[in-house]
Amino acid sequence: MQSIRRLLLGKRLQTADLPHQSISKPVGLAVFASDALSSTAYATEEILLILALATGGGAAAWAVSGNVLGISIPIAIAIAILLTIVTISYRQTIFAYPNGGGAYIVARDNLGETPAQIAGAALLTDYILTVAVSISSGVAQITSAFPGLLPYRVEIAVVVIVFMMVVNLRGVKESGRVFAVPTYFFLGIMFLTLIVGFIRVATGTLDPVTGVEAIHHEVAEPLTLFLILRAFSSGCTALTGIEAISNGIQAFKEPRSRNAAITLVWMSSILVMLFLGITLIANQMHAVPSHTETVISQMGRAIFGEGSILHLLLLAGTALILLMAANTSYADFPRLAALQAGDGFLPRQLTHRGGRLVFSWGIVVLSLFAIALVIIADARTTALIPLYAVGVFLSFTISQSGMVIHLRRVGKLKPGEVVQGLEAPMHYDANWRLKMTISAIGAICTGIVMLVFAVTKFTTGAWFVVIVIPTLVLIFFRIHRHYKEVAKALSWDTSAKPDQVGRKVQTLILVDDVHAETVRMVNFAKALGEDWHAVHIGVKPEKTPVVLEKWKKRIGEGRLHVIDSPYRLLAEPLREYIESLLANDPESYIHVIMGHLVMDTYWEQALHQNSAFIFNLALAGLERVVVTTVPYQIHHHHDAEGHDELITEDQEQAEAVTSQPK
Amino acid sequence: MQSIRRLLLGKRLQTADLPHQSISKPVGLAVFASDALSSTAYATEEILLILALATGGGAAAWAVSGNVLGISIPIAIAIAILLTIVTISYRQTIFAYPNGGGAYIVARDNLGETPAQIAGAALLTDYILTVAVSISSGVAQITSAFPGLLPYRVEIAVVVIVFMMVVNLRGVKESGRVFAVPTYFFLGIMFLTLIVGFIRVATGTLDPVTGVEAIHHEVAEPLTLFLILRAFSSGCTALTGIEAISNGIQAFKEPRSRNAAITLVWMSSILVMLFLGITLIANQMHAVPSHTETVISQMGRAIFGEGSILHLLLLAGTALILLMAANTSYADFPRLAALQAGDGFLPRQLTHRGGRLVFSWGIVVLSLFAIALVIIADARTTALIPLYAVGVFLSFTISQSGMVIHLRRVGKLKPGEVVQGLEAPMHYDANWRLKMTISAIGAICTGIVMLVFAVTKFTTGAWFVVIVIPTLVLIFFRIHRHYKEVAKALSWDTSAKPDQVGRKVQTLILVDDVHAETVRMVNFAKALGEDWHAVHIGVKPEKTPVVLEKWKKRIGEGRLHVIDSPYRLLAEPLREYIESLLANDPESYIHVIMGHLVMDTYWEQALHQNSAFIFNLALAGLERVVVTTVPYQIHHHHDAEGHDELITEDQEQAEAVTSQPK
Repeated sequence: MQSIRRLLLGKRLQTADLPHQSISKPVGLAVFASDALSSTAYATEEILLILALATGGGAAAWAVSGNVLGISIPIAIAIAILLTIVTISYRQTIFAYPNGGGAYIVARDNLGETPAQIAGAALLTDYILTVAVSISSGVAQITSAFPGLLPYRVEIAVVVIVFMMVVNLRGVKESGRVFAVPTYFFLGIMFLTLIVGFIRVATGTLDPVTGVEAIHHEVAEPLTLFLILRAFSSGCTALTGIEAISNGIQAFKEPRSRNAAITLVWMSSILVMLFLGITLIANQMHAVPSHTETVISQMGRAIFGEGSILHLLLLAGTALILLMAANTSYADFPRLAALQAGDGFLPRQLTHRGGRLVFSWGIVVLSLFAIALVIIADARTTALIPLYAVGVFLSFTISQSGMVIHLRRVGKLKPGEVVQGLEAPMHYDANWRLKMTISAIGAICTGIVMLVFAVTKFTTGAWFVVIVIPTLVLIFFRIHRHYKEVAKALSWDTSAKPDQVGRKVQTLILVDDVHAETVRMVNFAKALGEDWHAVHIGVKPEKTPVVLEKWKKRIGEGRLHVIDSPYRLLAEPLREYIESLLANDPESYIHVIMGHLVMDTYWEQALHQNSAFIFNLALAGLERVVVTTVPYQIHHHHDAEGHDELITEDQEQAEAVTSQPK
Repeated sequence: MQSIRRLLLGKRLQTADLPHQSISKPVGLAVFASDALSSTAYATEEILLILALATGGGAAAWAVSGNVLGISIPIAIAIAILLTIVTISYRQTIFAYPNGGGAYIVARDNLGETPAQIAGAALLTDYILTVAVSISSGVAQITSAFPGLLPYRVEIAVVVIVFMMVVNLRGVKESGRVFAVPTYFFLGIMFLTLIVGFIRVATGTLDPVTGVEAIHHEVAEPLTLFLILRAFSSGCTALTGIEAISNGIQAFKEPRSRNAAITLVWMSSILVMLFLGITLIANQMHAVPSHTETVISQMGRAIFGEGSILHLLLLAGTALILLMAANTSYADFPRLAALQAGDGFLPRQLTHRGGRLVFSWGIVVLSLFAIALVIIADARTTALIPLYAVGVFLSFTISQSGMVIHLRRVGKLKPGEVVQGLEAPMHYDANWRLKMTISAIGAICTGIVMLVFAVTKFTTGAWFVVIVIPTLVLIFFRIHRHYKEVAKALSWDTSAKPDQVGRKVQTLILVDDVHAETVRMVNFAKALGEDWHAVHIGVKPEKTPVVLEKWKKRIGEGRLHVIDSPYRLLAEPLREYIESLLANDPESYIHVIMGHLVMDTYWEQALHQNSAFIFNLALAGLERVVVTTVPYQIHHHHDAEGHDELITEDQEQAEAVTSQPK
C-alpha cells in the first residue's frame, strides 16, 4: 500500500523543496496556456454550430443557403479584437499584482468582499467547467478517430479525470514536465496543419470536406442579430483560460511578473493565430458541425487526407492538449480555494498542504465535481458550453473593474508613497490614465459579452450558472459568518483565567479485551498518577467472565467495571455511565483512555478503525469529558526464515535486545 | 441538519426497542418475498429473449418460424418443479436453524470455513445484483408506460437506490410497513390480470399483441439443446430470493421457525402460480421480447387495452414490487456481512449497529456497489442477468449440501442427545433419511443448474462472477489471517505486567490561538498535575507575536514554545519536535493535548475538522506518544430578541447563573 502510494504520488517532499517548485517560461506556457490554446479546438465549431441553425444544417447547406457559415469569419475577428483588449488589461494586472492577482484578489483589494466572493464563485465554477469541457472535447477528438469508442466516451472521460487528479496530487513541477511535451506537440502539428492548409488554399488544391454526418435541423431559423450574437458568445469560449497566468504568477521563476507577462503575450498571440487560422480554413473547406466528427478532424482530413498519419497526429495532439488543458484548473482551483479558505469563506481544510506540498483537498473536490458534470452532460461539449463562459466573463469584468480602481488609486499617489498598504512605484507613471482607460474598456467589453452570453444562452443552460453563482456566494458568506461567530464566542470574557488549583481527574480505561495494548493503557494511566479504573462494555455476555479473569491474571490491580449492553451497542451505554459519573461530581474531569492499534499499511488500518471514531462522536457533546487515544503499533516483521508476521513494538524491542551480540 | 437527519432517518431508537422490531407473517411476506415474487416480472421475458434468437425475432416470427417461443412453457414447468424441490429443502433448513440459517451458517456449521466463505461471497454478490437487477427492471416497467423517460433510466435507478438506502437506514420495521402496501397491491393487480387473461383466453377474446418494437436478429440461430438450456437457465432467475426467509428468521415474531416456514410455503405457491400464469398468457398473446416494452406491459395492453387504467396500474404494481424487491437485499446483505465480520472475515465495523439499530455500514456498502453496477450495465436487466444466478445457485447447492450433513448427524443422535453443540430433537425423527434425501436431490438439482448456467452464460457475463467469487473468498481469508495475527501479536508475552512505578509524562498543549478553548486545555493539563508546556506552530509568522502576547495576558503562566514552519505545514514540524523530545528522554510519555471544537450541527462541524485528524495521523506512528482531545462545545443560543448566535458553554453557564432569580 505504501509502495502503491509512492508509485502514484511520488515520495513525500521535504518542506524545503517548495521554492524549487517554480517553473520557467516555456514550462509555464505549457502549464498555464493549455486551457486558452486548447479552446481553439472547439471555439470555431461552436460558432458554426449556432450558425448552422440558420441553414437547416448539413453539408448541402453550403450550396443551398449561400455562405451563412461564412459569417463565422467576421465573428472570429471580433473575438480576436476582444482577446487583444483583455490581454493588454491582464498584462497590467500581472505587474500590479506580482504575487498573483486573479480576479479574486483584485476584487478583494479594490472592490470589497461581495464582488470578490462573486468573482471567486464564478472562477471556481469555471475551473470545474474547464475540466469538464476540455476533457469532453478531448474525448470527442479521440472518438472522431475511433468512432467505435463513441459509446464509451463518458467512461473514458472519467478515467482521464481520475488520472489528472493523481498526476496533480504529485505536485505542480512534475505536472509541468508531463504537460510540456503535449503542449508543444500540439503547437507543432497545429501550425503545420494551418501552413499546409493555407498553401493548399493558395494553390487551389484544398477541396471541400465530404462524408461528414452533419447535424440536421428540420426547419432553418431566420438569420437574426440574436442568432449572430449567440454564435459570437459561443465563440468567446476561445477567451477562457486567458486569466490563468495572472492567477499563477507565483509559480514562475524570478523575475516573476516579467516572465509571466512575456508568457501571457506569447500565449495570446499564438491563440489569435490559431483561432483565426482554423476559422478561415474551416470556411475554405466547408466544415460543418457534427456529433460524430469534430471540425478539427474534418480539417485534418481535408488537408492531409483521410486516415493519413498526419490527420491522426493532429487529432492526437488536439486530444492531448485538451486533456492537459484541464491541468490549468488543477493549478488554479486549489490555489483560489485555499485563498478563499484563508479569508474564511470556504472550509479551512482547503488551506492545508498535503505531503506533496499541494492543496490536496482542492484537487480532490475539483475532480469530483468535474466527474459529476461529465456524467450529467453525457460528455458532450455542446451541452456544457452554455454553462461555461458566463462565469469567465463575469470574472473578467470584475477583475478589470477592480484594476480601474487600483490604477486610479496608485496613479494619484506620489512616487514611492505608501497609503493604506498601497505602494506607488518609485518612478511616476505618466501613463496611468491610459492604463486605466484600457482596463475600463476591457471591463465594459467583457461585461457586454457576459450579458450577451447570459441572455442568448439563458434557456439552453446559462440559467443554471445564474442560479449557482449567487447560491455559492450565499454559502461563502454563511461560512464566513460562522467563523466570525465562533471567533467571537471564543474570545468572550477575556478576563477568565485558568484554574488556580487543578481540579480532580477521574480516568476510565476502555477495555475490550486484555492484552499488550491494555498494559500500555494502564501504564499511561499510572504515569498520570490520577484516580483510574477500567471499563468493559459487555456486548458479548459470554465473553465478560473471560475478560475479568484475564484482567485479574494479567493486570492484577485496579478495578474493572462491566457495563451491560444487552443490545450490543457500544457508545450509548458508555455515554450513560459517564453521564452518571458527571452528575455525581459537578467539578472534576472525566478522562477516557482508549486504545488505538496502529498498523503499517492502509488496508490493515482500515480493518481497525471506527470504534474510536464512534466513541469520540458519542462523547464529544459532553462537557468536562476528555478523550485520549493511546496508540499501540503493530509492525510487519520478517522472521529468520523470511516469513512475514505481525509483532508488537514491545516484542520488537525484546527481539532487538536478545539478538544483540553480548 | 439535525432535523433533516431526523426527518430522513427518524428519531434514534432506544436499545430496548430491538425486540419490538419483529414482524408478522403478512409483513414478513412483504419484506422477504418481494425479491422472489418480483422475479416473475422478468423471468418469462428472459426465457423468450433467448428463444427469440432461434426465430430471428420480431412479432412476425410467430407466423414464420412456428411456435419456437412456445418452448417456454415446458421450460417454465421444469423451473416450477425445481422451485418446489428447493422450497421443501429450505423449509427443512428453517426448522433446523431457527436463529436464521442462510447458506453461510449452514455451510459454516456442517461443511467448514471454505465452503462457508464461498457461500458468503456468492450471497453478498447476489444481494448486490438483486438490487441492481430489480431496480433496473422496475425502471423498465416505468419506461414502458412513459417511453419519454427511457434516456433517464440510469438516473432514475440511482435516485431510487439512494431512496432505498435512506428508508433502510431507518430500520426494518418501518421498511416492512412501507413495503407491505406495494407487495399486496402487486399481488392483487397481477392475479386480476391473470384471471381476466385466462377468462379472455377461454372465451377466445384475447388477441395477439401488436405494435411491439421487437428485438430483431439478422440471422436466426439453430434451436439447439444448448439454446434451450440457456433459456432454462435464464428463467431460473425466478428462483432468486427463495432463500431470503431462511436468512431472516430472526426478524419474525415467535414462534419464529413456524411463522417463517408458513410464509415460505405461501411465497413459493404464489410464485409458481404467477410464473406459470404469466408464461402461459404470454404465449397465448404472442408476447415478444423488446428493448422498449416489457412483456408485463405487453400483457397488460393485450388484456386490458392500450393505455387503460388497469394497464397502467399493472405496470405501477410491477414497478413498485421490483423497486421494493431490492429491500430483501437491504434486510439480508447487512445481516450476512455482520455475521461474516463477527467471524473475522470482513471488517469488524460491519458488526456495529447504528443509531436506528440497523447495520448502517452494510446498508451503505450495498447501495454503493448496486449504484456502480446499474451505471456500468446502463440499467439494462438483460446485461445483468448473466451475472446473476450463478451465485444464487452456488449458495443453494452449498446450503443444501450442508443440510445433508446436518440431517445425517442429527439423525444419528438419540432423542435429546447433545454432541459437539448439536442438539437432537426430543422425539426421534423417523423421517430423517427422507429429509436428507430431499436435501440431497435439491443440492444435486441446483448444482446442475449452476453448472448449466455457468457454461451457457459464460461468455455473456458469468465469467465475471467466476472471477469475483474466488477473489472475494481470497480477500475474506486474507482479512481473517490479519485479525488472527493481530490477536496473536497482542497476546504475546502474557507474563508482562504493568509498570510498578509510573513513568514521567511530558504534556504539550497545542495552541493555534489563545481563547476560551485554550483556557480549557490548560485547566485540564493542570488538573493532571504533570509537567506541561504549550506549543504553537508558526504557520503564519506575522501572527506569532500576537499569540505570544495573548498567551502572556490571558494565561500568564507556563511556557509557550514556538515551532517555526516556514512552509506552512502543520503536522511535520510538530512531529520533528516531538521526535527530538523522545530522543532526549527514552522512558517517559509525550502527551499531546489538542482542542476540538464541538458544534451543534453537522455542517458547522465539517468546517472545524481535519487538523486533529492530520495530527493524529502524523503522530500515530510514534511510540510513547499519546494524543488527547479536549472537546469544547459551542452552542446555538437565541438571545432575548430571538437572534441566533453562537456561544461557548462557559458563556452559557455564566448566563444561566445571571438569569436565575435571586
